[in-house]
Amino acid sequence: MERKKPREYGLWMGELPPGRQNDICDVPGVLIGNVTIIRGEGALVPGKGPVRTGVTAIRPHPGNMYQNPCRAGISVFNGYGKSMGVPYLLETGILNSPILLTNTLSVNAAAEGLLTHLLNENPEIGNDARTPNLVVFECDDSYLNDIRGRHVKPADAILALGRANNESVPQGNVGAGTGMSLFQLKGGIGSSSRILRLRNKNYVLGILALANYGLLKDLLINGVPVGLLLSHVEEKYCPGSLILVGITNAPLTRWQLTKLAERSFLGMARTGGISRTGSGEFCLMVSTQGTANEDIVSDFEMDDFYQAAIEASAESIWNALFLAQTMEGRDNRIRYALPIKEVLGLLNKV
Amino acid sequence: MERKKPREYGLWMGELPPGRQNDICDVPGVLIGNVTIIRGEGALVPGKGPVRTGVTAIRPHPGNMYQNPCRAGISVFNGYGKSMGVPYLLETGILNSPILLTNTLSVNAAAEGLLTHLLNENPEIGNDARTPNLVVFECDDSYLNDIRGRHVKPADAILALGRANNESVPQGNVGAGTGMSLFQLKGGIGSSSRILRLRNKNYVLGILALANYGLLKDLLINGVPVGLLLSHVEEKYCPGSLILVGITNAPLTRWQLTKLAERSFLGMARTGGISRTGSGEFCLMVSTQGTANEDIVSDFEMDDFYQAAIEASAESIWNALFLAQTMEGRDNRIRYALPIKEVLGLLNKV
Amino acid sequence: MERKKPREYGLWMGELPPGRQNDICDVPGVLIGNVTIIRGEGALVPGKGPVRTGVTAIRPHPGNMYQNPCRAGISVFNGYGKSMGVPYLLETGILNSPILLTNTLSVNAAAEGLLTHLLNENPEIGNDARTPNLVVFECDDSYLNDIRGRHVKPADAILALGRANNESVPQGNVGAGTGMSLFQLKGGIGSSSRILRLRNKNYVLGILALANYGLLKDLLINGVPVGLLLSHVEEKYCPGSLILVGITNAPLTRWQLTKLAERSFLGMARTGGISRTGSGEFCLMVSTQGTANEDIVSDFEMDDFYQAAIEASAESIWNALFLAQTMEGRDNRIRYALPIKEVLGLLNKV
Amino acid sequence: MERKKPREYGLWMGELPPGRQNDICDVPGVLIGNVTIIRGEGALVPGKGPVRTGVTAIRPHPGNMYQNPCRAGISVFNGYGKSMGVPYLLETGILNSPILLTNTLSVNAAAEGLLTHLLNENPEIGNDARTPNLVVFECDDSYLNDIRGRHVKPADAILALGRANNESVPQGNVGAGTGMSLFQLKGGIGSSSRILRLRNKNYVLGILALANYGLLKDLLINGVPVGLLLSHVEEKYCPGSLILVGITNAPLTRWQLTKLAERSFLGMARTGGISRTGSGEFCLMVSTQGTANEDIVSDFEMDDFYQAAIEASAESIWNALFLAQTMEGRDNRIRYALPIKEVLGLLNKV
Repeated sequence: MERKKPREYGLWMGELPPGRQNDICDVPGVLIGNVTIIRGEGALVPGKGPVRTGVTAIRPHPGNMYQNPCRAGISVFNGYGKSMGVPYLLETGILNSPILLTNTLSVNAAAEGLLTHLLNENPEIGNDARTPNLVVFECDDSYLNDIRGRHVKPADAILALGRANNESVPQGNVGAGTGMSLFQLKGGIGSSSRILRLRNKNYVLGILALANYGLLKDLLINGVPVGLLLSHVEEKYCPGSLILVGITNAPLTRWQLTKLAERSFLGMARTGGISRTGSGEFCLMVSTQGTANEDIVSDFEMDDFYQAAIEASAESIWNALFLAQTMEGRDNRIRYALPIKEVLGLLNKV
Repeated sequence: MERKKPREYGLWMGELPPGRQNDICDVPGVLIGNVTIIRGEGALVPGKGPVRTGVTAIRPHPGNMYQNPCRAGISVFNGYGKSMGVPYLLETGILNSPILLTNTLSVNAAAEGLLTHLLNENPEIGNDARTPNLVVFECDDSYLNDIRGRHVKPADAILALGRANNESVPQGNVGAGTGMSLFQLKGGIGSSSRILRLRNKNYVLGILALANYGLLKDLLINGVPVGLLLSHVEEKYCPGSLILVGITNAPLTRWQLTKLAERSFLGMARTGGISRTGSGEFCLMVSTQGTANEDIVSDFEMDDFYQAAIEASAESIWNALFLAQTMEGRDNRIRYALPIKEVLGLLNKV
Repeated sequence: MERKKPREYGLWMGELPPGRQNDICDVPGVLIGNVTIIRGEGALVPGKGPVRTGVTAIRPHPGNMYQNPCRAGISVFNGYGKSMGVPYLLETGILNSPILLTNTLSVNAAAEGLLTHLLNENPEIGNDARTPNLVVFECDDSYLNDIRGRHVKPADAILALGRANNESVPQGNVGAGTGMSLFQLKGGIGSSSRILRLRNKNYVLGILALANYGLLKDLLINGVPVGLLLSHVEEKYCPGSLILVGITNAPLTRWQLTKLAERSFLGMARTGGISRTGSGEFCLMVSTQGTANEDIVSDFEMDDFYQAAIEASAESIWNALFLAQTMEGRDNRIRYALPIKEVLGLLNKV
Repeated sequence: MERKKPREYGLWMGELPPGRQNDICDVPGVLIGNVTIIRGEGALVPGKGPVRTGVTAIRPHPGNMYQNPCRAGISVFNGYGKSMGVPYLLETGILNSPILLTNTLSVNAAAEGLLTHLLNENPEIGNDARTPNLVVFECDDSYLNDIRGRHVKPADAILALGRANNESVPQGNVGAGTGMSLFQLKGGIGSSSRILRLRNKNYVLGILALANYGLLKDLLINGVPVGLLLSHVEEKYCPGSLILVGITNAPLTRWQLTKLAERSFLGMARTGGISRTGSGEFCLMVSTQGTANEDIVSDFEMDDFYQAAIEASAESIWNALFLAQTMEGRDNRIRYALPIKEVLGLLNKV
């Protein structure tokens, strides 16, 4: 059976309209690149495999992020995470690096590749009393992946950055999402977008989620406790994480982007996420046309953005769940794909 | 038509079982008292009325809170609020005062009544180099109420404290909830509870909500966008607020209570709340058996508490909505009660 | 012996030049008003006295603060305090009320007076879906004052607001500083200012301190551990607090004002303050010409403002200490004035 | 001229007594290891040198930090920094890794060495649903060092960890401090300690500073504005940073350690530091005997710890300044050592 997004099955995904692709690449200029690493099967031999991991690169615009940084806001709802670059983002509200997603033990390697990329692009680094703030987020894919093996190399990060393009965003078992679990089912990368109208202009807000959290029994779809109702027998749980990256072309300030990041977790709540202990929940919101001027968009005009961030975050996570395919990994462990047909039955959609 | 709680109509309110009363008074020792002030009708004459307001007193235990304080954690999801007592709670994790809820412009009067109450109980205040930290939360009821009139007096606060009892908690248009609006319908006070099992013992977590936020179109019930589907024509929106007070008899630390307070907003998200600009969202979590020792309950045992706080917060808000009755206030403005029958139809429950 | 400011004795107070008056009223438009309440002597009879307290009103500009609010940033270094108005300031960066200082148990009364003042000035409150955020800071003067007596009345707050003027700021035992202690000596109100040059224009930053903290042995003056060296026998210590209010006419953003507020505590550090447990340390920074636009003043141009805030905070505290006079209060307790002559000897200034 | 610590010249360094070595290794079990990399001279050739950098390893105890983690609290006074591991520390209050210090662009390499060290020590990582939180702090040494060259390799981090010992801590131009600047003079590593008495037992608090901040004119020594008075002509300023790591054997909670970390910046203030924009100021406080139980040490017993942290932080920074020697680096740039004799003259100590 071909797997489709929940919206294509007629599920209600919110009030605001999605963009053309209904993904983060609807935001003009945004590029996504993936390196997916799948190698070996059977028993875990640390350093050998099986490998089920990868890197996802997010470039908010095609240019040089160090020369043309973006305004950004970050919110950490649950800090069980080993992500890199948070304090500088909190202090300055400036993103001056592309963003990478990978597994927990590959943060250093990915960051080193990102640094090489930035040094190559910017010969003045080291000579101008400034340095870039590398931003690398992570989730733990050790349920399926030989995470000790550190199979992501700096070159993979550089490759993902190089591959980044604005085509329809691959979702499910791809890039950093390759080995991830979601509600004890197969998870991974998901994405969605919303169009908003503000002062007679249209703007886009896109979300990309690396979704790797939750017990099966937590899962809500359209408010229905699907996880409690499925016949599926759940597998072992490892505390995971949720990384949300949002990008918009609206002229928001760092403060407004921070408030937007905070709201995005209300979208996670709609999927049944309860932010279990051990599950790092981070959201970074970026504006490609960010502004220094709070008067451009009044705080009281932010409500549609809040709605957009919440709806698109929930839909991104559900997209990851609907599109990810069953995967077998280390030690013959299997994360099963969401049984879509059974779910649709529970939702009275068939 | 008699109004009942959504659970009584068969709506799914979560996985964990409620306590006997399904309200905050299921937590042993908790007392709730209300003063409801309803006077006058017709055109607003500031200082005269119409008056649609009140005070709600929450006493975590029947004793002297200054002598026997409770551990507490507070989270401010959206700081548009004029509540009192927050910095000391953040610094110390100690609640050494009962909690009052009232309208925005009556915080001072309520606090003064609370102070009188505490000074009378504790002759040593002023002589022992300590002072109590008064905790008063507020929402804005000016859509229906003559808020400028400051009709709540210090004596009303003292009266509400004196009336506090452990009977089934009155909900809807009562106490501080008297004049409140929720999703452009009538809101007010709601409450719910959950029973949890931890290390072979049962504990209770109860929530009391002062619910006064949201546009009609935001409203979700059981995941269904009821607000978008109702035939009801919405009235004017005033930015409101949500106050959540949780109490448990589990031996949690201040840090765990803070984490629990943060999670409660995920319950608000289930009702469709998006935390609009101007809407102050505060949650205070209190433990009557709180502990100084993190080793009593491991952080990894907190997940059931998170689930309980989320479920009970959502149910408290829905309870306020289902139980509040249509009210006419100043300038003949009307906040209509949720049309339950129509809602049940939309949810396929009739 | 007449008491003078440390600068007048030749002590080094920093690199940047002070304004004409060397106080917060050097900032154009700033008005300060005091009500000082001194009544009775001898044994404490709660409710009767002796009374050693007051209110200090700070109006950032002479106009209507609700109609013409100021940008503001607040930092809480140590949250043991019962001040009012903090969450809204943190969320919005907007000060839409004058600021009052008083004793801990008079916050409600002062706030009620402030509210009356604002309601009288603004008939639309209660009708426009907005309410002011009352800002009242406090310290504990119970060592000398009958704090239980709640001798500050709403009318005193209104009187202090009405008296506010831009003359040389009275310092020492005045207004809210009347009964305060500092390093176990007599403390109270202190103020200082600095002139800065930015992009070919001069700006002023003024600080007003309500200084009520510290053990004698903590005291540093010009880096010398004067407190350890004085022959003075210390009296009992009550945990106190430090309130710093800064105002500038420079076009700073809320974020820059917040950063400035954080830096001000480094000025407290120069006086030997170690922020003891129980001592609430709050700083509010306000700009009368605040801006929504981060591009007006680059963050990298903030350094002179940081220096100014640090120097003026330290000097304000030392000014309070040098200008406060010996006071006898309840139960014949005495707080002695700093023995200036002995101090100057220790500093080799005589 | 041999360079000695300020205490050895008779300068007042605070009230509390230092430990035997007056450094962080006075805390039982603490080990410090350095790799210092000095290579080449003359014009900068990125990738070749000159190299003036290194790594400093801090092991709170000689055992396996992943198996036997420590309680910790972290405070970020100024977030302009690219340090690693902060969110997890904020969330959990647990340090489960040794600590490394290095230059800004070598964080990834140092972290990768640290990860190798931890994986080798702990074969269960990757199999137990947990991962270590790598803690690497950094300052920018690009004024003297070929920072683009990334001359610190993972093996250097492993070597520094392996060399770690409890001997008298080398200070000045050593390890991560090799190429650092302080008040436009030569800076680097400094350390100090204090002995405290609590409930009839002695405890030690030690600080290690990586000191790399400030303009010459900011410098205060014993309250005297030495920086303004020196005849030395200042060199170019690069925004730097200050990293403070504190370790104690007292049974403090994570909250108390966090409060202690916040206070340490008051020690920086005594040296004249104003936390300029661009200067990342981070403090991590660790307890080797940390406790889960707030009742062991009352918050009101923390004051001596606050005093110790402030005094030892200031003395550590002054030690770095007094002990660092003049160094020539890339492009023949020179950071001069503090002219001690002239300084002592200004302080009337000669």
